[in-house]
Amino acid sequence: MDYPILENIGSPQDVKNLPEDRLDSLCDEIRNKMIETVSKNGGHLASNLGTVELTVALHRCFSEPDDKIIWDVSHQSYAHKLLTGRFASFDTLRTQGGISGFTRPDESPYDISYEGHAGTSVSRAAGIAAANRIKGNKNYAVAVIGDGSFGNGLVYEAMNAAGSKGGRLIVILNDNEMSINRNVGALARYLATVRAKPEYYRFKAGAEKALNHIPLIGVHLSNGLFKIKTFLKNLIYRSSFFEDLGFRYIGPIDGHDIPTLCEAMSSAKMVGKPVLLHVNTVKGRGCDFAENSPENYHGVSEFNLATGESRHSDDSYSSQFGKALCEFASKDSRICAVTAAMTKGTGLEEFFEQYPSRSFDAGIAEGHALVFSSGLSAAGQVPVFAVYSTFLQRAADQLIHDGALQRKKIIIGIDRAGFVGEDGETHQGLFDVALMQSLPNTTVYSPASYSDLRSALYNALYKDENLVAVRYPRGSMPEGGDDLTSPGEYEVYGDENAPYAIVTYGRLFFEAVKAVKELSAKGINAKVIKLCKIIPLPEECESHALDCRKVFFFEEGMKNGGVGEEFSCRLMQSGFGGKYIHTGVDREFVSHAGVDYLMKKYGLDSASMVRLIENEDSNERENKA
Amino acid sequence: MDYPILENIGSPQDVKNLPEDRLDSLCDEIRNKMIETVSKNGGHLASNLGTVELTVALHRCFSEPDDKIIWDVSHQSYAHKLLTGRFASFDTLRTQGGISGFTRPDESPYDISYEGHAGTSVSRAAGIAAANRIKGNKNYAVAVIGDGSFGNGLVYEAMNAAGSKGGRLIVILNDNEMSINRNVGALARYLATVRAKPEYYRFKAGAEKALNHIPLIGVHLSNGLFKIKTFLKNLIYRSSFFEDLGFRYIGPIDGHDIPTLCEAMSSAKMVGKPVLLHVNTVKGRGCDFAENSPENYHGVSEFNLATGESRHSDDSYSSQFGKALCEFASKDSRICAVTAAMTKGTGLEEFFEQYPSRSFDAGIAEGHALVFSSGLSAAGQVPVFAVYSTFLQRAADQLIHDGALQRKKIIIGIDRAGFVGEDGETHQGLFDVALMQSLPNTTVYSPASYSDLRSALYNALYKDENLVAVRYPRGSMPEGGDDLTSPGEYEVYGDENAPYAIVTYGRLFFEAVKAVKELSAKGINAKVIKLCKIIPLPEECESHALDCRKVFFFEEGMKNGGVGEEFSCRLMQSGFGGKYIHTGVDREFVSHAGVDYLMKKYGLDSASMVRLIENEDSNERENKA
Repeated sequence: MDYPILENIGSPQDVKNLPEDRLDSLCDEIRNKMIETVSKNGGHLASNLGTVELTVALHRCFSEPDDKIIWDVSHQSYAHKLLTGRFASFDTLRTQGGISGFTRPDESPYDISYEGHAGTSVSRAAGIAAANRIKGNKNYAVAVIGDGSFGNGLVYEAMNAAGSKGGRLIVILNDNEMSINRNVGALARYLATVRAKPEYYRFKAGAEKALNHIPLIGVHLSNGLFKIKTFLKNLIYRSSFFEDLGFRYIGPIDGHDIPTLCEAMSSAKMVGKPVLLHVNTVKGRGCDFAENSPENYHGVSEFNLATGESRHSDDSYSSQFGKALCEFASKDSRICAVTAAMTKGTGLEEFFEQYPSRSFDAGIAEGHALVFSSGLSAAGQVPVFAVYSTFLQRAADQLIHDGALQRKKIIIGIDRAGFVGEDGETHQGLFDVALMQSLPNTTVYSPASYSDLRSALYNALYKDENLVAVRYPRGSMPEGGDDLTSPGEYEVYGDENAPYAIVTYGRLFFEAVKAVKELSAKGINAKVIKLCKIIPLPEECESHALDCRKVFFFEEGMKNGGVGEEFSCRLMQSGFGGKYIHTGVDREFVSHAGVDYLMKKYGLDSASMVRLIENEDSNERENKA
Repeated sequence: MDYPILENIGSPQDVKNLPEDRLDSLCDEIRNKMIETVSKNGGHLASNLGTVELTVALHRCFSEPDDKIIWDVSHQSYAHKLLTGRFASFDTLRTQGGISGFTRPDESPYDISYEGHAGTSVSRAAGIAAANRIKGNKNYAVAVIGDGSFGNGLVYEAMNAAGSKGGRLIVILNDNEMSINRNVGALARYLATVRAKPEYYRFKAGAEKALNHIPLIGVHLSNGLFKIKTFLKNLIYRSSFFEDLGFRYIGPIDGHDIPTLCEAMSSAKMVGKPVLLHVNTVKGRGCDFAENSPENYHGVSEFNLATGESRHSDDSYSSQFGKALCEFASKDSRICAVTAAMTKGTGLEEFFEQYPSRSFDAGIAEGHALVFSSGLSAAGQVPVFAVYSTFLQRAADQLIHDGALQRKKIIIGIDRAGFVGEDGETHQGLFDVALMQSLPNTTVYSPASYSDLRSALYNALYKDENLVAVRYPRGSMPEGGDDLTSPGEYEVYGDENAPYAIVTYGRLFFEAVKAVKELSAKGINAKVIKLCKIIPLPEECESHALDCRKVFFFEEGMKNGGVGEEFSCRLMQSGFGGKYIHTGVDREFVSHAGVDYLMKKYGLDSASMVRLIENEDSNERENKA
């Protein structure tokens, strides 16, 4: 495809200089480029298609990077990237070494922050506005945030605090009637009523005038009951919610009409106190299949450009988890499912259909989801909260205070545990083990196969007490995986008397088995200790490594605070005299790249295992010789 | 003092049976008992004095434990404890083995949950209400929550989700115009206007009638602009904020008038959808000095019963931190201070007075405080966020996503790190090290003395990059502590060739020094390796332990994921052949008791150190013999 306008845009200044009559063509080019690229590389589609005009308007109305735009979650920042010098490299989107699918300050001075978790933009923009105030400059801080993110408590904390402090802060509520899932909660309903009313800009003058002509009413009703100003505001703008939080409300605005957007942004800049600018957009705009089912084109794998058909299989640890949970729930009415706006992603769609009264979507509110689960359990239900590993970080205190401490059964399904690949550093599931490592009253399973996963869930439901987590990776099991595993707390595979032991958990087990076979072909004898229960470590599991000359621990997660450290302490306390080599991620954020690439890079694939052990083996021979 | 009524109350049923004319006397007795006990044992005073009538009314209007009352933070649950069978044991409040200052299910079936962190009550009550709906019973779930807690995002998440789901859920907003600090934020201002309006109960009928008599207005204005019902609601109750969140609003009610409270609670029970009952109370009510300066009688140490004068010194790690920060800030205008409603507790009062434009109180909103700090740093300021260790847990994801990941300077002062004593399991600062252990781009100091603390803060400000935390305990340094320490990343004290090494960090260093002296007197030679920088471990620090026969690591925190595990891995990888003994808290919640007692219990005081090392020494001699 051709991009005659886009290829000449190197910075926001070029966007500003573009004649107004070429903006529509620019937007078409941006959309084409997005669709073309995402169809090949995968990525976020619907959210990016919906914010094209909004992004163009922002770049025309604000002076970046002095004015700073914070993209909440930043899964809608593709147009921003295309307009800030990254058109030429956009083909590398989400590929190893290429540009990220999210904002990244090391990519561009126009990317102010790393963003990937919902709801942080208003707090961050408020901090920037405060710094501008301290420094006495006139720059603006702008947060662009979707209605889905608005269900997160952080946004409320930020609005509450910022509204009372003032500053040049503009929050753009990008209302597309949709979080990742269907939006939930009272605010969604509130926005729906606001959204439906006539536009502020077309409307304001006339309405205020009309109301000013009925002074009698004002006088009559104001007898100690209310102030006419608040009354008028509620009446015309029906925006009391945001005004109560200290923001001036402007909206709703058509988010696909650049002149209107620019006019509204100019107004917002002149208000002199924090402004909430409410913008209506359509997710998937300009691409039929994405517009028709935006939830399917939120985050997508590569797809057929003509039909939108995905090239990915549906079978996954997530779907297996959901299926098993449905089965158990059919015989046990205590079981409830809880999600934080990820019904589809966590494989809970079937559960939600079959058991609606026992299904709860908290919206993007992981903290609430966990405490709510704690409430369900306090009243005798068995809550199962399925959540991505990276988002469970947002409920760390709730894991401690409302999970472990309460000594009631709460089950967490930790999805996307380990490398997630192309989404990059904000989405990798590498911290959950370290976060849970020190928790009292807590059990964590990290199954390798689907059948392990099912057994772990069974144990969580019917054998273990208190807080129990079952963690599993994104994607699907290698073929034949179920035949390779048995679901004990731990298992030893291979020759018990082997001088080398590979210790690992989760899907790395399959790499370890492959490695042992390859090593065996090279005349090197190694065994695998597969941990399924990782917190607390099964009693005596280390005894099978005690007599080995060398023990190799592989961990798809952070080394510090991980399982490998505890395993080594166990060995040391049992008098282990051999060598211990621990492989994992060493206090480093892991950038976007395919999972296979990452496995290699961090030395966790079977080939790396073989290489490491072969080296150690030949060192040993040399030393002997 | 005499407690003729109170001593005969064994359960809520007895409260229900009490004639109405004896309720005032009951409340007097409750207040006397509280003041008497807190003056001896320390505890929360102002909050408890403010909720006496509210508690009596709740126990008269609801049927516990079928109806479940959740006390947010539960620092206002003393009256509840006195009325649910714990009058006789109330003298043991906050003492080792005695009753807790917070709700604890293992203490009473009327305590539904462990509560100590703000804002969880609405989520938990919503979960209970959902469980009741599933089970088809008619029980109520009630959350009692202060206006301070209402600034926490969790409450908003819960209101947003629960309001749309229904159920027999009643949220009692205990509005005492005061969180721990002066309340901050827009909601506080909103509540102030609501609070000032005439009472709903005295008022409602008349106002609605009057409005119904002006139908013309309704007809005239409703032309496409608004619905008359919403209009009326906003008009009379000015409660749109809570109604927008899906709750029916009742209030404001005089929270010290039991008959009115009971009437309002009965109404709330009949509404059939979630209700927010807004109650005005006075913190410290009935006790002059507490009522006059409630912020000083929030959490108190033992005090003089007549004057209210505290028996505690003001000198502390917190005040030293605040003092040092003021000094640095006087020469560096980039430094900003951020607190989450703990200006006084974290020693920042002076900073807030001296540098108001660089001071930010986020309210009880630790997540926002951290991301806001991240925003300040993105715009070139140097934010210092001081927060209690236990509350930092609430910003764990923000530490990762908005702290470490951003690669900008953010400094965290982690106050109350380690045992805090009488506040018990919800307040101990035992998890922060484990939470930060796996973080990239992060430095953590755990100074022993005041001068160490100052140096660590200096390093954080001017030497280290990115996220830096300085953690220090509650209370004050042992006398002469500054003379004993020097502020390197780590230091070795004693005979470098000693066969035994004690490795530790933070205030345990002083115990270690004492232990080494006592051991020396017994002819046992040990040295101390004092770590000041604990994350990442200083290079080579383990080399000083490598030749020891036995290494003893002591840690005032969780063993799993703590520093001792990493130290042992380092030793093992360096070929250490001796014995390693790690002492700390082993996946266990630590109940309330004095810090001295806890140090002994967990083997962390000098006497325990001596005993352990003496034993190991004599084992060694025996083995040799």
